[in-house]
Amino acid sequence: MADAWGDLIIDGQSRALDHELLGLAHDGPGQATFELTRPLARFDGRLFGGTAIAVAIVLAEVETARPSLWTTVQFIAGDTTVGDRFVCTTEVLAEGRSAAQVRVTGRVDGREVFCALGATAHRKTGRVEAAFERFPSVPLPEAAPPFALPVPASIRADARKALRNIEMRSAPPLPGSTVPQGHLTLWARVPGRTATPAVVAYLADMVPLSIARAANRAGAGASIDNTMRFSGAVADEWVLLELDPHLASGGYGHGGVLVWSPEGELVASGSQTASLMLFD
Amino acid sequence: MADAWGDLIIDGQSRALDHELLGLAHDGPGQATFELTRPLARFDGRLFGGTAIAVAIVLAEVETARPSLWTTVQFIAGDTTVGDRFVCTTEVLAEGRSAAQVRVTGRVDGREVFCALGATAHRKTGRVEAAFERFPSVPLPEAAPPFALPVPASIRADARKALRNIEMRSAPPLPGSTVPQGHLTLWARVPGRTATPAVVAYLADMVPLSIARAANRAGAGASIDNTMRFSGAVADEWVLLELDPHLASGGYGHGGVLVWSPEGELVASGSQTASLMLFD
Repeated sequence: MADAWGDLIIDGQSRALDHELLGLAHDGPGQATFELTRPLARFDGRLFGGTAIAVAIVLAEVETARPSLWTTVQFIAGDTTVGDRFVCTTEVLAEGRSAAQVRVTGRVDGREVFCALGATAHRKTGRVEAAFERFPSVPLPEAAPPFALPVPASIRADARKALRNIEMRSAPPLPGSTVPQGHLTLWARVPGRTATPAVVAYLADMVPLSIARAANRAGAGASIDNTMRFSGAVADEWVLLELDPHLASGGYGHGGVLVWSPEGELVASGSQTASLMLFD
Repeated sequence: MADAWGDLIIDGQSRALDHELLGLAHDGPGQATFELTRPLARFDGRLFGGTAIAVAIVLAEVETARPSLWTTVQFIAGDTTVGDRFVCTTEVLAEGRSAAQVRVTGRVDGREVFCALGATAHRKTGRVEAAFERFPSVPLPEAAPPFALPVPASIRADARKALRNIEMRSAPPLPGSTVPQGHLTLWARVPGRTATPAVVAYLADMVPLSIARAANRAGAGASIDNTMRFSGAVADEWVLLELDPHLASGGYGHGGVLVWSPEGELVASGSQTASLMLFD
């Protein structure tokens, strides 16, 4: 059950389900905790990057009572494990009429594991509303086959046991589509959940996969950061991830992602740097 | 003159000129200062976003003796003015064999003005080296006409007096080029300077301009953050900014940028959120 903070209504939406998904409990203003459970961890039991950015987003939202505009989370320590209890501190650094600036830190046993910077903002009315990217032409999620993440052989048994709450479907561009070469298009959802900013960020942590794939390798990566930027549009459940790998160099990779609603609204854009891990 | 820190050699390049460009002086490990001079400020005299991210990058580099991999800087307070003295603190949060995690804060009179997160990293050898984006076909900088930033009428007189050290040239795609519609391509340099990561970040703070232009408006924006990711490739002087506006919504805008060397190497990718200011 969400506590009073998790029940906050932001732009007409409750954040109670975000709190439930992440197991977040508040200890008072600026203080919250969650436990790293199996569904919030990577296959190897460490903190999943999407979990950290989702936590940072929802804490920034409820502390400022505004929807997320942008968040970047930095991963400082990698040696986390299922069962770890994270203590999160949210600082509101500045508050204007529309935007607020926030910093969120996550600690385990007093040691800083992640740090996030971000802004939340009431959107203004009567401003320019325009998206400058082209919605990819792909099969609808109902018509798309399941997509399974590539997993290294050494943890395949653990991965089969993992209780993942993310569902993904393969959405290759339809013939005649204008999707640029190298982009990877996938439908993703947490079944039954509205795609709030926290849920979108939780789903979108897939850039390293697209970099490995563009290099014709099986692999993934350890996120060095996750960055997400939100339009204010909200998708009911499924979102289309249009992953845009930029480059691989010296063991690291960079890339971007556009997040679309099934109706073709641009919901978010993101970017990410990762330490690449190839397992072929 | 650069002090001992500014003279550090990183991947065969000195950071002395970066220190000179930014007027950076070190007071000891983790402590540095700079003055907001006219060329480091926006036309209205406030801190230029490119200055803050350049400062964060070069401080992270010299504290860890590694080249920049990724940096995000958050702008907390906007009311800075020419003559302000910034006191910067650099924390090395984690150091591995190749990557280090860093946080840099900039304060004026004890008040936090910007906070940056980032990683620096020695690049590994024998890894996948590949770029997945297409180099835009544009005129060479020598053949490109000057590009003047749009400036609101109210500060046009100040802008004419400003001693800008950035030179920009218009580089519209050549006929038959595959540059996506809406992208804005510009050559940029600090004359006489190698395009180190700090210089590239200083030049690349142009996403809001591309958003206003894609919306067919004259305008720019106040950066909410600047994010840059580096490949490790270095350009001699000129870089091509391929600006990719994502969207404008509710008074805010998001977009990306690819930074190319004249030889077609992908030097960096970036992204940015801004509060949009239209002046037409």
